[in-house]
Amino acid sequence: MKVGVLGIGITKFGEIWDKGLRELLLDAQLLALKDAKIEAKQIDALYTGNMCGDSLSGQLHVGAMAAENLNLDKASIRVEGACASGSLALREGVLAIESGQADIVMVNGVEKMTDVSTEQVTTALMGAGDEELEGFNGLTFPGLYALLAKAYMTKYSKLTRDLLAEVSVKNHFHGARNSYAQFKSEITIDTVKNATMVADPLTLFDCSPITDGAASIILASEKTAKAMKSQVYITGSGLANDSLSLARRSSLTSIPAGAVAAQRAYSQAKIKVDDINFAEVHDCFSIAEILAVEALGLAKPGEAYKLYENKDTYFDGAHPVNTSGGLKACGHPIGATGVKQAIEAVEQLRGHAKNRQVKDAKIGVTHNVGGSGATVCVHVFKGE
Amino acid sequence: MKVGVLGIGITKFGEIWDKGLRELLLDAQLLALKDAKIEAKQIDALYTGNMCGDSLSGQLHVGAMAAENLNLDKASIRVEGACASGSLALREGVLAIESGQADIVMVNGVEKMTDVSTEQVTTALMGAGDEELEGFNGLTFPGLYALLAKAYMTKYSKLTRDLLAEVSVKNHFHGARNSYAQFKSEITIDTVKNATMVADPLTLFDCSPITDGAASIILASEKTAKAMKSQVYITGSGLANDSLSLARRSSLTSIPAGAVAAQRAYSQAKIKVDDINFAEVHDCFSIAEILAVEALGLAKPGEAYKLYENKDTYFDGAHPVNTSGGLKACGHPIGATGVKQAIEAVEQLRGHAKNRQVKDAKIGVTHNVGGSGATVCVHVFKGE
Repeated sequence: MKVGVLGIGITKFGEIWDKGLRELLLDAQLLALKDAKIEAKQIDALYTGNMCGDSLSGQLHVGAMAAENLNLDKASIRVEGACASGSLALREGVLAIESGQADIVMVNGVEKMTDVSTEQVTTALMGAGDEELEGFNGLTFPGLYALLAKAYMTKYSKLTRDLLAEVSVKNHFHGARNSYAQFKSEITIDTVKNATMVADPLTLFDCSPITDGAASIILASEKTAKAMKSQVYITGSGLANDSLSLARRSSLTSIPAGAVAAQRAYSQAKIKVDDINFAEVHDCFSIAEILAVEALGLAKPGEAYKLYENKDTYFDGAHPVNTSGGLKACGHPIGATGVKQAIEAVEQLRGHAKNRQVKDAKIGVTHNVGGSGATVCVHVFKGE
Repeated sequence: MKVGVLGIGITKFGEIWDKGLRELLLDAQLLALKDAKIEAKQIDALYTGNMCGDSLSGQLHVGAMAAENLNLDKASIRVEGACASGSLALREGVLAIESGQADIVMVNGVEKMTDVSTEQVTTALMGAGDEELEGFNGLTFPGLYALLAKAYMTKYSKLTRDLLAEVSVKNHFHGARNSYAQFKSEITIDTVKNATMVADPLTLFDCSPITDGAASIILASEKTAKAMKSQVYITGSGLANDSLSLARRSSLTSIPAGAVAAQRAYSQAKIKVDDINFAEVHDCFSIAEILAVEALGLAKPGEAYKLYENKDTYFDGAHPVNTSGGLKACGHPIGATGVKQAIEAVEQLRGHAKNRQVKDAKIGVTHNVGGSGATVCVHVFKGE
């Protein structure tokens, strides 16, 4: 597999009260077209990741909206897999090109979350879990990940409270260096530990925020991408699924679908873990990043704590993780997150990541999770 | 393009109060596996069309549910394009096979609509239109299609009230011959004309019902399908988009994206209109079938009335349309509809449609609309 990246576009992430779903999406689309130096009419197909348009804005059918925004009648589809919606849209864009049905594809992700109450958002997000087994019984997403954190930290006691907090500290450090991040302030371990408890052991600073934002990326066949001198290619796309509910999961101290998705992506890209120069992973909660780096093989099961003890996951460390600031500091506009991860990979591989640039970055991976691990999608990016 | 059909499965359509979203989906999946004579583990990827899981059941992430139902970790994605969600899932299944990333794909459509009030369903369905321009201002889907009916019947007065009612009469005639249809009673023109007015000129019997149901179809590469002696192949997939709102549409007396999607599908399948033996079209409202047969080229603009005057659209007529009973009589479980249309095409091409069998059927098309025409997806099926 080899699909090129022609252009990227992303809005500011945060509470963007003067833009609706349509305007956020359009802003990202226009930025990506400008970056790709193509006209809208050159696009053959569009895929848009969006999770909560229905319950938070009353708007489904966002695929049609993405085409309408550019005055196109081209094939345009919305894809949803909870918080993995953005990377699923990316995957479908890659497959459309590989199928020969499209040469140039625009992939979008968008979410408008701050027009409603936090309670409405929390309820809507629970649609990513198992509504019958979990939602109706009062579980929320902080609660689900708190269960995973408790199980993990009971089995692997070397992941201390302080080291778990290091995930958020490092992601805020990176977010402070990213112009479109929601939070640009550095924090300390005490900030995390002393914050309001959300679901024990997770405090407010272990949790990603509620965010508005949109991101777009334009893909092309290898041939077209080479002709347009693209510097970045997608060489692997791995997708794996598991039960919606934690109750039916084979493990609570790992996200099994993460490892499966990673192996599928690595195998397709013909890479080994050691080839990876950086990773953008799904840190919806601090514990999720711990589970992610183990799923990707960057640490053995139970040993992720070492990366945080050694500060390896900073942009200039041995295993840079979430140089964008991650979901925690960059923000988590659900449908946009998977596309934002891809954009960070492209920025790094183009060498445009400025004061968070990973040195000599050649291979990066993105890792995007839906729900508590029912969907995991991993992509491999290569710089040339 | 050539992708084979290995198997089909469909639940009863109707008010199915003893099954939830998950159980409906599972029932269709198991029936399709049985028909295809394969085991679940042979499936490489799954695509599931669903529109209103979020607002009607609090359940998103239905792609993961589809994989979990079969105890699979395979790539599974939910696709949404309002009432066209089922055919978009079918399209993505076809593309996944054409991309070489999957050899056998299960495509599902499911909707659970009768657990909530009619008002809740009407509000949820409006998410298919433009929420800002239409929904917030009080328009509903019967209202949108009533506007189209008024515009069409003003411009083309030969489509009389009686001939418009003939659409529903014919679809009920077919529904009465389909074992899984929601409505199995034949009706008359007077039934339609004398029914409660919903949105002038559309009465209750011009409108498709609220329905629970699920449908599954298993696809395979041409090579695998031939080895398994498949009798039916998909040879064209055309998708086109237009504005979400009627306000921004170039025509109110046609659905422009329908004609574009049809031409794309015919061109890919290398067929002409005259080659088509039957069509399953999107008759969410009686007027929608009139617009559909014109979009497909079965009648010239303004001349669809002739087909209904001559009773050409019955299963034994010159241009059979909606032999399943269509959305009107078979029922319209939104996400399942596009897949049901494909299943009817397969039944006809296999020669299994019993007392509604189209004689010597070799080529059939399906036509599935999202919203008031913002998405139209057309597929061409060929019997061998």
